[in-house]
Amino acid sequence: MTDLSPLGELSSPPFSTRHIGPADDDQARMLETVGFASAADLLAVAVPEAIRTADRLDLPPAASEPEAIAELRALASRNTVLTSMIGLGYHDTITPAVIRRNLLENPGWYTAYTPYQPEISQGRLEALLNFQTVVTDLTALDVAGASLLDEATAAAEAMTLARRAGKAPSNVFVVDADALPQTKAVLATRAEPLGIELVESDFTAELPDCFGVLVQYPGASGRIRDFRSVADAAHARGAQVVASADLLALTVLTAPGEMGADIAVGSTQRFGVPMGFGGPHAAYMAVRDGLQRQMPGRLVGVSQDADGRPAHRLALQTREQHIRREKATSNICTAQVLLAVIAGMYAVYHGPEGLRRIGRRVHRHAVVLAEGLRQGGVEVVHDAFFDTVLARVPGRAAEVVAAARDNGVNLRLADDDHVGVSCDEKTELPHIERVLAAFGVSGAVLADLDASAHDALPATLTRTSDFLTHPVFHSHRSETAMLRYLRRLQDRDIALDRSMIPLGSCTMKLNATTEMEPITWPEFAGLHPYAPAEQGAGYAQLVGELEGWLAEVTGYDAVSIQPNAGSQGEFAGLLAIRAYHRARGESGRDVCLIPSSAHGTNAASAVMAGMRVVVVACDDDGNVDLDDLVAKIEKNRDRLAAIMVTYPSTHGVYEEGITRICELVHEAGGQVYVDGANLNALVGLAKPGQFGADVSHLNLHKTFCIPHGGGGPGVGPVAVRAHLAEYLPGHPLHGGSPVGPVSAAPYGSAGILPISWAYIRMMGAEGLRAATEQAILSANYLARRLAPHYPVLYTGRGGLVAHECIVDLRQITKETGVTVDDVAKRLIDYGFHAPTMSFPVAGTLMIEPTESEDLAELDRFCDAMIAIRGEIAKVASGEYDKKDNPLRNAPHTADCLVTDDWNHPYGRAEAAYPLPSLREDKYWSPVRRIDQAYGDRNLVCSCPPLSAYED
Amino acid sequence: MTDLSPLGELSSPPFSTRHIGPADDDQARMLETVGFASAADLLAVAVPEAIRTADRLDLPPAASEPEAIAELRALASRNTVLTSMIGLGYHDTITPAVIRRNLLENPGWYTAYTPYQPEISQGRLEALLNFQTVVTDLTALDVAGASLLDEATAAAEAMTLARRAGKAPSNVFVVDADALPQTKAVLATRAEPLGIELVESDFTAELPDCFGVLVQYPGASGRIRDFRSVADAAHARGAQVVASADLLALTVLTAPGEMGADIAVGSTQRFGVPMGFGGPHAAYMAVRDGLQRQMPGRLVGVSQDADGRPAHRLALQTREQHIRREKATSNICTAQVLLAVIAGMYAVYHGPEGLRRIGRRVHRHAVVLAEGLRQGGVEVVHDAFFDTVLARVPGRAAEVVAAARDNGVNLRLADDDHVGVSCDEKTELPHIERVLAAFGVSGAVLADLDASAHDALPATLTRTSDFLTHPVFHSHRSETAMLRYLRRLQDRDIALDRSMIPLGSCTMKLNATTEMEPITWPEFAGLHPYAPAEQGAGYAQLVGELEGWLAEVTGYDAVSIQPNAGSQGEFAGLLAIRAYHRARGESGRDVCLIPSSAHGTNAASAVMAGMRVVVVACDDDGNVDLDDLVAKIEKNRDRLAAIMVTYPSTHGVYEEGITRICELVHEAGGQVYVDGANLNALVGLAKPGQFGADVSHLNLHKTFCIPHGGGGPGVGPVAVRAHLAEYLPGHPLHGGSPVGPVSAAPYGSAGILPISWAYIRMMGAEGLRAATEQAILSANYLARRLAPHYPVLYTGRGGLVAHECIVDLRQITKETGVTVDDVAKRLIDYGFHAPTMSFPVAGTLMIEPTESEDLAELDRFCDAMIAIRGEIAKVASGEYDKKDNPLRNAPHTADCLVTDDWNHPYGRAEAAYPLPSLREDKYWSPVRRIDQAYGDRNLVCSCPPLSAYED
Repeated sequence: MTDLSPLGELSSPPFSTRHIGPADDDQARMLETVGFASAADLLAVAVPEAIRTADRLDLPPAASEPEAIAELRALASRNTVLTSMIGLGYHDTITPAVIRRNLLENPGWYTAYTPYQPEISQGRLEALLNFQTVVTDLTALDVAGASLLDEATAAAEAMTLARRAGKAPSNVFVVDADALPQTKAVLATRAEPLGIELVESDFTAELPDCFGVLVQYPGASGRIRDFRSVADAAHARGAQVVASADLLALTVLTAPGEMGADIAVGSTQRFGVPMGFGGPHAAYMAVRDGLQRQMPGRLVGVSQDADGRPAHRLALQTREQHIRREKATSNICTAQVLLAVIAGMYAVYHGPEGLRRIGRRVHRHAVVLAEGLRQGGVEVVHDAFFDTVLARVPGRAAEVVAAARDNGVNLRLADDDHVGVSCDEKTELPHIERVLAAFGVSGAVLADLDASAHDALPATLTRTSDFLTHPVFHSHRSETAMLRYLRRLQDRDIALDRSMIPLGSCTMKLNATTEMEPITWPEFAGLHPYAPAEQGAGYAQLVGELEGWLAEVTGYDAVSIQPNAGSQGEFAGLLAIRAYHRARGESGRDVCLIPSSAHGTNAASAVMAGMRVVVVACDDDGNVDLDDLVAKIEKNRDRLAAIMVTYPSTHGVYEEGITRICELVHEAGGQVYVDGANLNALVGLAKPGQFGADVSHLNLHKTFCIPHGGGGPGVGPVAVRAHLAEYLPGHPLHGGSPVGPVSAAPYGSAGILPISWAYIRMMGAEGLRAATEQAILSANYLARRLAPHYPVLYTGRGGLVAHECIVDLRQITKETGVTVDDVAKRLIDYGFHAPTMSFPVAGTLMIEPTESEDLAELDRFCDAMIAIRGEIAKVASGEYDKKDNPLRNAPHTADCLVTDDWNHPYGRAEAAYPLPSLREDKYWSPVRRIDQAYGDRNLVCSCPPLSAYED
Repeated sequence: MTDLSPLGELSSPPFSTRHIGPADDDQARMLETVGFASAADLLAVAVPEAIRTADRLDLPPAASEPEAIAELRALASRNTVLTSMIGLGYHDTITPAVIRRNLLENPGWYTAYTPYQPEISQGRLEALLNFQTVVTDLTALDVAGASLLDEATAAAEAMTLARRAGKAPSNVFVVDADALPQTKAVLATRAEPLGIELVESDFTAELPDCFGVLVQYPGASGRIRDFRSVADAAHARGAQVVASADLLALTVLTAPGEMGADIAVGSTQRFGVPMGFGGPHAAYMAVRDGLQRQMPGRLVGVSQDADGRPAHRLALQTREQHIRREKATSNICTAQVLLAVIAGMYAVYHGPEGLRRIGRRVHRHAVVLAEGLRQGGVEVVHDAFFDTVLARVPGRAAEVVAAARDNGVNLRLADDDHVGVSCDEKTELPHIERVLAAFGVSGAVLADLDASAHDALPATLTRTSDFLTHPVFHSHRSETAMLRYLRRLQDRDIALDRSMIPLGSCTMKLNATTEMEPITWPEFAGLHPYAPAEQGAGYAQLVGELEGWLAEVTGYDAVSIQPNAGSQGEFAGLLAIRAYHRARGESGRDVCLIPSSAHGTNAASAVMAGMRVVVVACDDDGNVDLDDLVAKIEKNRDRLAAIMVTYPSTHGVYEEGITRICELVHEAGGQVYVDGANLNALVGLAKPGQFGADVSHLNLHKTFCIPHGGGGPGVGPVAVRAHLAEYLPGHPLHGGSPVGPVSAAPYGSAGILPISWAYIRMMGAEGLRAATEQAILSANYLARRLAPHYPVLYTGRGGLVAHECIVDLRQITKETGVTVDDVAKRLIDYGFHAPTMSFPVAGTLMIEPTESEDLAELDRFCDAMIAIRGEIAKVASGEYDKKDNPLRNAPHTADCLVTDDWNHPYGRAEAAYPLPSLREDKYWSPVRRIDQAYGDRNLVCSCPPLSAYED
């Protein structure tokens, strides 16, 4: 017998070694390059002592992947999935398995970034164009965006769109009394800071003066109303008409655009997207011609590439990318791309006749239910309905709902006397029987009811117009065809499953499979957000633990995971500050200081929260100019509400002055908002809630591994210190609260929270800290390798950066004409997604490697950047033509290279394979550089006819 | 109120409309092309009346996808997943989530075909080369194959390899008494018909004369034995030494090749492949230099392409593809590619130090257990062991096993007095505690035991040699890196997720997601095959139902799903015939008639079953020559055992004479074996068990939707009429049976049976029949479209084919020099996998579209074939050079086209984009045409050094 090696030395390496790219020996090599003996030495110089936290995070010890899965299974088993016929904007639906596996569970789709680089995003852009076509066709409006966060916030966006688009002098926005409760609540949250007066109406009396009207179609009660006369009255007053409409209902109902709606919004959840306890789901917005340039959010349009070939890209991008700071009209950044793509593919798979069949089938079940109730002596309140039957049962409503629950069905307790029952794609006659039984109706022969009962759709509201006539909705009906369509689109794009996405400020890190797997388990995916609390016990525990862990990580006292995007978290944080001042009788505090380097969203959120933005200058190093800050504070001392700063700064630097900034603002009675966008540089090292901030939002889709999904979902919790805790967002479901909800669902995008839960659970305190250290080391490694070739902007102490670095091309551009755009597009030829372009400084590239990239990939990226620098040098030297060179002509498609008449002064191989390794693994861009201006001049935002693709 | 449209008219389209490609209107167009007014009219002509079945299949009504999933969840919930420490070749293991999702659950991997077309299979070939390298490194042998079916059949293949390779005159094969019980049983099944005498030995006495010895390493009892002296003794007798070795044990134990083994076999299941109630798992075989050309199964080797670039392909293919009929040495076709790839990737992800750590950790748990037992007064039988501890508990074994089961752990009841406990990757100290408790041992402090107990590995058996030194086992350790490696390999290949795979006789149909999802559910994936019966109640029900449905579909009386490949089903079927004759005292019946057109496997199986093959001629139409049949029957009347025919024939034709053939053979006392390879042309229309056959095997990986997995798993149930039912394969687990097992696990590849279950459950009788009709229609549509361009060989009545068609290139080749190979490789440039080449007739292509391809894809394929015919015409006319043309040079890589010195007489665009649609969606072959001969001359079968890839 030979040896003795105790088990302790043989334990499995922790998950963090899989999450973090570089292995130990690689880390050592990287430290050597950066010039430090250890990570501790590096951090001692890089991270200001003043903000460092001494304590290890107080988190449970790291779980292994199987342990985390086992715990999540236990949490899942605490949820109870009944049949939910509650309605109110959330309906059960069948996600086609081919879409679930090959899209929702496929990293080729879910790890993609927002399609700002359209050439490498043609797949998801086409998928979004399908989505937009579904929306415009079904609503019969002219232009639809590429999704918004949820129906309620979409309604709020429609409200402000109506205000700025209309000519009515009124401050009044009229809301359908039959609107969804969460829509009413979010409208209220949004309206108040903007001075908008909400007036509820059941449209029986004359319409008041107003700038807009929102009609729910069908209503929360199920009623469908012909709103043509309301629209006429609104238009007569110069007001805009917003229809909040159910897309599935529109397969059988007259479209909003055909009844006078100027704007339509709604949820596309029931197009195959799991309920997920409330989200994430894609909301839609469509507008009539004339309003498209005022729409919030992203819009996919068709343009053409350098060879004149049709190509997709985000249209009118200035509306979003450069949110117009204090002149902003919306703070929306994130969309719900992954969910919008699912909804669009659901329509592609079913086609118009399939959707119509599903719509009619849902309706017929509702009809049979209504007839059964009537014949059983139960009063049905509305004669015209689509999927929802409102029954009047005086004094018995709670009893009926309880009986149904005992039968496995959740119904809506509308009030003491009314019960709502919504049918959906999964409803079958046995469900109807169970519901009838809960009402005390027995003995009904449903087949007979079905045979005799007429539809409950008024003739004037029965859809006659066609929809989804484009071939894409008729070509992918077999599973095989659908599978290949998904693969084909996926293959056009670069996502994290192909290469590094070094986007500064976007933190494109690993979305681990173990984190992702639980979100499609039925126990997490199948819950209605308004199901009785005990049915969501697993979710409640998960949310509670996650909020607690996030509080621990950030040093705050309370966290709300309700905001379903960073922008909404910002808004919620500012609302908390606003409510706090008001509660202290200081409602005059409405000035929000924002450094000039800030992301545009900050200012936009401040405006939405009713604040006035005052810009603070930055010095040459990109730091807040403390003198200017003092001056601005002095000037606004009595009105100072808050300062919003990003930390580390948007320049990727740990500003030394942060604690002083906090002190100055607090001394003047203001609150400090630290934007958590760059939290990946702080976790385990420093806590904003401890180094001086009062509130932050976090981007779980950055630091905490929610995948970017091609441009959403995002999750943007808001974290506050104790004095602000009572001003976190409330929800009508949870009773009164000083501040209303900022998202439709009480727990926002609850369905994907298992991802961040699993990440923290598996990393533990040591893993999280190690990730941060590696992120900092990797950024500094990149900076060191690139510095001899490109100037690196904005470094802090020791010439170090934080978790990202900015390379400056301005001088290069001046000397050679080669732009950041040229470099970004040339990187595509090298197989890379470009870094962030011209943010925060025009003419620069901001690079964030994250901890998940291994050394080989970091080096591959550096090699590409350095090779490109060599190409730039050839332009400078005249070896390359100034206008006709591989940079200017990038990206090169295979098509443009495999031609019989190549007429460029450089070689084809030079264009395609500037590095030998590309011959082994080459990504081919499906299009050449896209002409943005052409597409904006010729705005096409739905599927173009196939003839557009003919030569 | 407007309308009344009862629910009955609104029901969801059945799953069959998703499985079957062409929609109704497309079917009408196809019928028109073929010249029939209806499918019924077509079938009336195409399918001989004599074989038609009048009745609708008696199957449950088709379930929808959600219904099938719900039923499978109910079945799954009837299985109970305890911790199984039974061992005996099946061990729990952790499938890395990134591998599960992106490989096992990814159609890009699981829908691929066997890599016979190596240019479009470079990804999975590289993955298999990794697998082979893992095996050769760990066994310290020279060459390893690309997987075999299971450990027991691999041992049987090793036995016959030893016989033909050795010079020993003996008929004796010595088997370790400590071999796995299923290995012994399968060896017995295989040995008897071949006249091999098995002798069991515990190697204490002198080795008898023999041609081979099998040593189990470690033994079933857990003991590890230094078999160097056994090897010496065997070699002294001219015998070969086979080690049946556990790969994980080899991370810490001296390798078989270092102790004198000539051959090593074993399972790779515990390298990340779920137990799945017994399979599918990849077995391995490795041999010393000198035996590689005699190995059964597939072997991946490195060769080079037309540009001299290293490229992978199956080496020495003649061994398998053209199994040498009556001179065959094995009937193996299918491998276990998908599972081998998982095992290889598991090693890539963990690397040598990770595997060693897992191996040592497993060992240390066993050590702690043994020490705990000893200190608790329980006798531990063996001092030297790896993972399995055999405890002696006189008279108490059943009681201990029962107590452990109550504690949630399955142990092995070795006999009344002995209990076996095997540790595995999932074993933790709490499991050990529970096991000790079951033995009545309490109070042990495991940490103390761990600190004091020495390893149980003898110094002479402790591994000192390195393994997995190749960079691929050191480069993909982060999840991100692994994800990208999987994606990169996947992208090199064509699988069903990209395009049609029109392989004749291979039935590459849809593997629907709903069919695939359940196989990775823990309740199906986590069961040990020897777990107590009540724990597999869900499986038992599923197997029973599936066997019953298959019997109904085929018209037989009994089915066994045990054979885990078609070849094993054939063998089992012939064994049943053999046993039947013997039971009737007609043991002289040993002649098996086989038509000359038969697949080589038929003859090989007959030889393995101890039969003599007599070939029956075919006529010019490819049908069995009835005159010759009569003559051959006459000549062998007394010795006639069986005829094996394929129906429809391997030429894809419904032979009119089939019923007459059956009569003639039966009259002569023979049995009729109908090869079920082409069952996709019969389901719902005709039943072999009713039109005259006695036995068939089915290929569930063809007709019943088990995915091909890149070359396995397969499932090959055997179906028989009542008089043969008692001769279906048995299993030691199920007690005595006239015929032994043909596979290691009692239910073969149980883990993937939910796929076929779901397919039948969702198709129902109408769906299955509709699929068959569509398959026939699609084949005839292809034949009609191609007939003006290529001669179509072998048609039946009305000039119709069955479910596949053969296009004849022989005349074209003679006239132009363009070969089937040229056409096949040129199809790659068009984005297609080639049809079956030169089978059953040299110089032809056999095309099977299956019902799952939609009309657009069928037309795309026809367009490609027709365009290629146009290119051939240019060769004929001299417009293309005879030697330097796009056909001869196909496939073209991007690399070879994007060159600055193109020197071919045709254009680049012509090479790359012969059809305009290719500009929208182009598959780029990663290598040019591969030189097969070069690779066979320079055999390299493990990962080559990276320098091989440098220019």
